[in-house]
Amino acid sequence: MRRTAGQWLYDIVAFLYQRRTATRADIIQSTGLNLGSVSTALQHLLNRGVIRRVGALESTVGRKAELLQLNPDAAYFIAVDLGATRIRFALTDFVGDLRCRWEQDVLQGKELPVSKVIEGIRKVRREVPRSGDGAIASVAISYPGSMDSDGAIHAVNLGWSGLPLEKTLRRALHLPVFLERDDFTSVLAERWLGRGQESRYWLHLETGNGVGLGIFNGGDPVRGFRHMAGEIGHVIAEPDASDLCNCGRRGCVEAIASSPNIVRQYLEASEITGYSEGFSVTEVFERARLGDAKARAVIERVGRVLGRTLAFAANLLNPELIVLSGDIADASELLVPLIEDEVQKYGWQKIVEGLRISVSSLGSDIRLKGAATLAFLEFIRDHDRLADLSYSRRASSGTAIRQPATKRRSARPSANAVLSR
Amino acid sequence: MRRTAGQWLYDIVAFLYQRRTATRADIIQSTGLNLGSVSTALQHLLNRGVIRRVGALESTVGRKAELLQLNPDAAYFIAVDLGATRIRFALTDFVGDLRCRWEQDVLQGKELPVSKVIEGIRKVRREVPRSGDGAIASVAISYPGSMDSDGAIHAVNLGWSGLPLEKTLRRALHLPVFLERDDFTSVLAERWLGRGQESRYWLHLETGNGVGLGIFNGGDPVRGFRHMAGEIGHVIAEPDASDLCNCGRRGCVEAIASSPNIVRQYLEASEITGYSEGFSVTEVFERARLGDAKARAVIERVGRVLGRTLAFAANLLNPELIVLSGDIADASELLVPLIEDEVQKYGWQKIVEGLRISVSSLGSDIRLKGAATLAFLEFIRDHDRLADLSYSRRASSGTAIRQPATKRRSARPSANAVLSR
Repeated sequence: MRRTAGQWLYDIVAFLYQRRTATRADIIQSTGLNLGSVSTALQHLLNRGVIRRVGALESTVGRKAELLQLNPDAAYFIAVDLGATRIRFALTDFVGDLRCRWEQDVLQGKELPVSKVIEGIRKVRREVPRSGDGAIASVAISYPGSMDSDGAIHAVNLGWSGLPLEKTLRRALHLPVFLERDDFTSVLAERWLGRGQESRYWLHLETGNGVGLGIFNGGDPVRGFRHMAGEIGHVIAEPDASDLCNCGRRGCVEAIASSPNIVRQYLEASEITGYSEGFSVTEVFERARLGDAKARAVIERVGRVLGRTLAFAANLLNPELIVLSGDIADASELLVPLIEDEVQKYGWQKIVEGLRISVSSLGSDIRLKGAATLAFLEFIRDHDRLADLSYSRRASSGTAIRQPATKRRSARPSANAVLSR
Repeated sequence: MRRTAGQWLYDIVAFLYQRRTATRADIIQSTGLNLGSVSTALQHLLNRGVIRRVGALESTVGRKAELLQLNPDAAYFIAVDLGATRIRFALTDFVGDLRCRWEQDVLQGKELPVSKVIEGIRKVRREVPRSGDGAIASVAISYPGSMDSDGAIHAVNLGWSGLPLEKTLRRALHLPVFLERDDFTSVLAERWLGRGQESRYWLHLETGNGVGLGIFNGGDPVRGFRHMAGEIGHVIAEPDASDLCNCGRRGCVEAIASSPNIVRQYLEASEITGYSEGFSVTEVFERARLGDAKARAVIERVGRVLGRTLAFAANLLNPELIVLSGDIADASELLVPLIEDEVQKYGWQKIVEGLRISVSSLGSDIRLKGAATLAFLEFIRDHDRLADLSYSRRASSGTAIRQPATKRRSARPSANAVLSR
């Protein structure tokens, strides 16, 4: 009985996280629970301060429909985005908003000391509102690179080879710490707060320093045997091309369509030398907009390569929607028509007719929002804690809600669960 | 309580279907149920004749471990494979074995009358053992082409455009009828009775008149928005090639690697004319084995195209295993080395190192076995029926177990469920 009731609470709270405000009728429709169960659960959540009433919708017949939302202060989390050039910290709340933030450049070619990460977390941790109800429940981190079977992080850009990040942070901060690979944190944000809410069958293409694909089938993520599904960046798009990839081969999608490679191609074509340091992909986009033929040629090539590769992916996966995110989202008016053309040309007609291609609305905060969402979902996945939220709050007022240290060492095994609808 | 117990029964019976024989300890380990629950469930199944004892394993310590298996005669099904050139019927039993069969050629270029299908089903239906315990529970059909939203079948090879096959058969036979697309019936057989038992992350490449890919992620099939995932046949593998595909484009995988196109390429290269009618892909394989350079060149091209395409699919899906099935399985010693080469060359190293490529062991009966498995799984998915099997048997002795006609019109929505582990 308790387990079932806990699942109700989870479903309702997760739904409100996505929709921000909803009526009782919305909740009944979305969760498939009956009126009685929803009423009991909502009363429980109202009593414990997890949700609150925020007004009512006018109606021509019957009584007004009460509007409900999550209490933003029910719990706080710390979200960290370990980017290749910048690390970012945010204090986030129970509705996924970023309440305060701290950013810092990463020194290129140097190892990032863990102490910098701890320092950043402590900085935003001090900003918990004194008047707030909740305490900091956990830290969630979006990391680049990969995690080995011992849970240690390998990330070339940060100079880490086998760093036990989770253990180190947990000991220093006395908070549960969840880790997720950066390409997957983006997908998580898109799924819960972005365009991924619109579909159960969709692909999420993200470009930046690399190119990655997130895949959803029936609402569930496709992650693959060693959690490496979506490596579209290392598909060889042009076998005869000379573009050298980080992986050592030539003609990979990433060697053509990643941001550093867009800049490289433009600089090579323009024979600009000694200027590469501060030249950004945004500038290539801007020059293409202003009519620079060389910039346009690079964009054309990038759009065609991405489109052909997405056509292939669509044939394999039959999505309803493709969401474009990361740096290419900044040049969507240049790239989307090219991508659409190639998808229609190279995709199988029955699959690509009606296939929508949209641009992400989450901008550069996407990974912080993904980490915030991970922390939120891990928090509510603990049904007992959700049921007893007022108890936890009392017990740990002003400090962290502690969990046994051995529980949930890594977010990896749970990510499938938190992503599923 | 009933629902839970029904689920136990399902898990145990499904496990025994895969393993054929198992000990109590195997069942406990596989299902995760405790000794008490397993003992109760087994006793129930033994009492009702669903399972039986078939001997015991010797053991050096303790008492002998009892071996259990499903009772082959607990229920029968009729499996039908509507192939492009041949339709096949089989009476199948509760362990998925084909007890008797009937085959018939399809007249090319003519519409296949439904009466032929009904006739074939009736022929094998008469073969139910008189001494058997069970009755025919349902008919499961593997069909080519596609199903529209009304459940009608469109299949060019059979001359059907919108045929209400399920309804027609159900009315004529007074049996539940389940339908599944042919490429997916193969995958179903491979998943339950073949190499797909070995992995939760695998791909199933099948060639024949077309080329299709079955995709499994975490034990679940990836089917896509309109159930069209896996259309690898219409990936354009060689954009500059002249090979014309059925879809109207050139250079598709299918236009190069399907069996009719393997034959076509060989005949074109050999300038053999007026002989194409009876020339089979098996003969091209045989000639390649005998050293015919033109046959070898065609096989080489097919292997390379399939390998490069599978490399791409592996990058996207990170499988642990790729199973090759259909016509290419007959030339595996020629094709597998080529495919492995290209997969290693074009796949991302971290994903393809250690990736296994195996050949299906199910042979040309694969779709009949898939249909038999579909019927079996639909049967046991009805927990109440599984719990009350003896009642159903008594009530319908010698005739079909009838279901309300409106229930389960099509197997489509349920296929995800029956395929999942």
